[in-house]
Amino acid sequence: MTALNDGWFTEVFQDQGTAFSLQVKKKLHEEQTPFQKLEIYETETFGNLMVLDGCVMLTTRDNFLYHEMMTHPALFTHRDPKKVVIVGGGDCGTLKEVLKHPGVEEAWQVEIDERVTRMSEKYFPELCEANSDPRANFFFGDGIQWMRDIEPNSVDLIIIDSTDPVGPAEGLFALDFYRDAMLALREGGIIVQQSESPLLHTDSIIKGIHEDMRKAGFEHVQTMPFPQPVYPTGWWSCTMASKENPIKYFREEDANNRPFVTRYYNSGVHHGALAMPQFMVDALEDEVRPEEG
Amino acid sequence: MTALNDGWFTEVFQDQGTAFSLQVKKKLHEEQTPFQKLEIYETETFGNLMVLDGCVMLTTRDNFLYHEMMTHPALFTHRDPKKVVIVGGGDCGTLKEVLKHPGVEEAWQVEIDERVTRMSEKYFPELCEANSDPRANFFFGDGIQWMRDIEPNSVDLIIIDSTDPVGPAEGLFALDFYRDAMLALREGGIIVQQSESPLLHTDSIIKGIHEDMRKAGFEHVQTMPFPQPVYPTGWWSCTMASKENPIKYFREEDANNRPFVTRYYNSGVHHGALAMPQFMVDALEDEVRPEEG
Repeated sequence: MTALNDGWFTEVFQDQGTAFSLQVKKKLHEEQTPFQKLEIYETETFGNLMVLDGCVMLTTRDNFLYHEMMTHPALFTHRDPKKVVIVGGGDCGTLKEVLKHPGVEEAWQVEIDERVTRMSEKYFPELCEANSDPRANFFFGDGIQWMRDIEPNSVDLIIIDSTDPVGPAEGLFALDFYRDAMLALREGGIIVQQSESPLLHTDSIIKGIHEDMRKAGFEHVQTMPFPQPVYPTGWWSCTMASKENPIKYFREEDANNRPFVTRYYNSGVHHGALAMPQFMVDALEDEVRPEEG
Repeated sequence: MTALNDGWFTEVFQDQGTAFSLQVKKKLHEEQTPFQKLEIYETETFGNLMVLDGCVMLTTRDNFLYHEMMTHPALFTHRDPKKVVIVGGGDCGTLKEVLKHPGVEEAWQVEIDERVTRMSEKYFPELCEANSDPRANFFFGDGIQWMRDIEPNSVDLIIIDSTDPVGPAEGLFALDFYRDAMLALREGGIIVQQSESPLLHTDSIIKGIHEDMRKAGFEHVQTMPFPQPVYPTGWWSCTMASKENPIKYFREEDANNRPFVTRYYNSGVHHGALAMPQFMVDALEDEVRPEEG
């Protein structure tokens, strides 16, 4: 197997013919949880690194890009999000960003693997700062079953912060799951899902997400690209969909006056993320073109 | 030295503690030019790969992101660009995009290393399709001297499509060069320069570019981020500056009605690229905030 020498963690994307490596000082932790192999490294330049089944999940240095984009665009698109459910998101970074919004009254993190959260508390404490917020609720178990069992019309925003659509997370990229999410959402509800790399996955994954979300009744679907250096191609996306409201509605004044600090997100970035590259417009041609939005 | 096994080309960014690798089928070419070591590989999934002094320059698959963003935003910001000078750009991809604009009457590619252009003609022929355009002119020699010698007030747009600011390209990231460029530009003139990675180089390089461009008399300076998977962090930028006109002026209708195909660029992407991430706004605080633009 291909690997850099000692002193590097390398993730090989065999299907993509690429590899990404981070120089590491030492391995801080390794365990086989009931669900996956969990490793934590201290890197030379990216802070701590969490790896699940050999795949880079996050680093201290650049996770802000992902966590801010999985949350703030959707929270400022919904007119008044009070109850938010995160499916996955065991590192708690998404929960932290959600709870920055004062209007949120209740947030649930529904993560299958409690060990991810426990190790994040230890090695990414800055992501877990909001875990003791009285609005924060944790359920460790199967998100697919949880979504089936939840009271209908009870949630404003569902954030699917999962691993890749293989293995345990496969069922989160599926029509049945979107249908259950649709039932769980109140009027005006929004769903947002991490949706892989624009360059690699527009045809193979993102297009299918759009189709399945529409089949489940989400009339408005929008993919938003953003940079994420430690993921394949350094370029990632989330896909946001709404029941009724146009997905380009934006509480821009609230975003400009946000009572919290962000490092990537601002209202210009929000607008920018709504503009898809031309090749994505062409591939997802049932989408409204950005210039017509 | 750290390296993946046979079958991979790896670029190690020692200072950054990261490495990026592409799986290769074979090496197509290698030579020591008078200026640098030039290698061409055939990769498994990214087409052909050009490497200069060990640094990835471009691949067939993803160079469209860089070349479109180095050209179309500036060409649609200038009110009527007729004469364009590219400093560097030996692979001819920037020249090709420039010449897609029917209003351009004359374009010069001023590249120090003719071997880069010759090997691009052989291994990246799709980037060299416009080389026989009667508006295309080539000068192989020192761009710094060329800019010193050019007739004042004779150019509308200068595109600095260079390697990193070390070695031969160092003098292209310098106040003296910007001053010469300022003299070369006509009224309404614009300069645009590749300006490295937002995540890695906002403080170390981009801030200095802004300061030097202002010192040289460019009143309006704007950095535009874009994805570039094969460069460090997968996230790159160019910095655009103008003599007099607000840099956020945009011939949007012309961009929407562009008589040529793009794969990344469109008017939504243009607007999006004008919105800097919050950490860049904070670091370059003399910049106008995107939401106030």
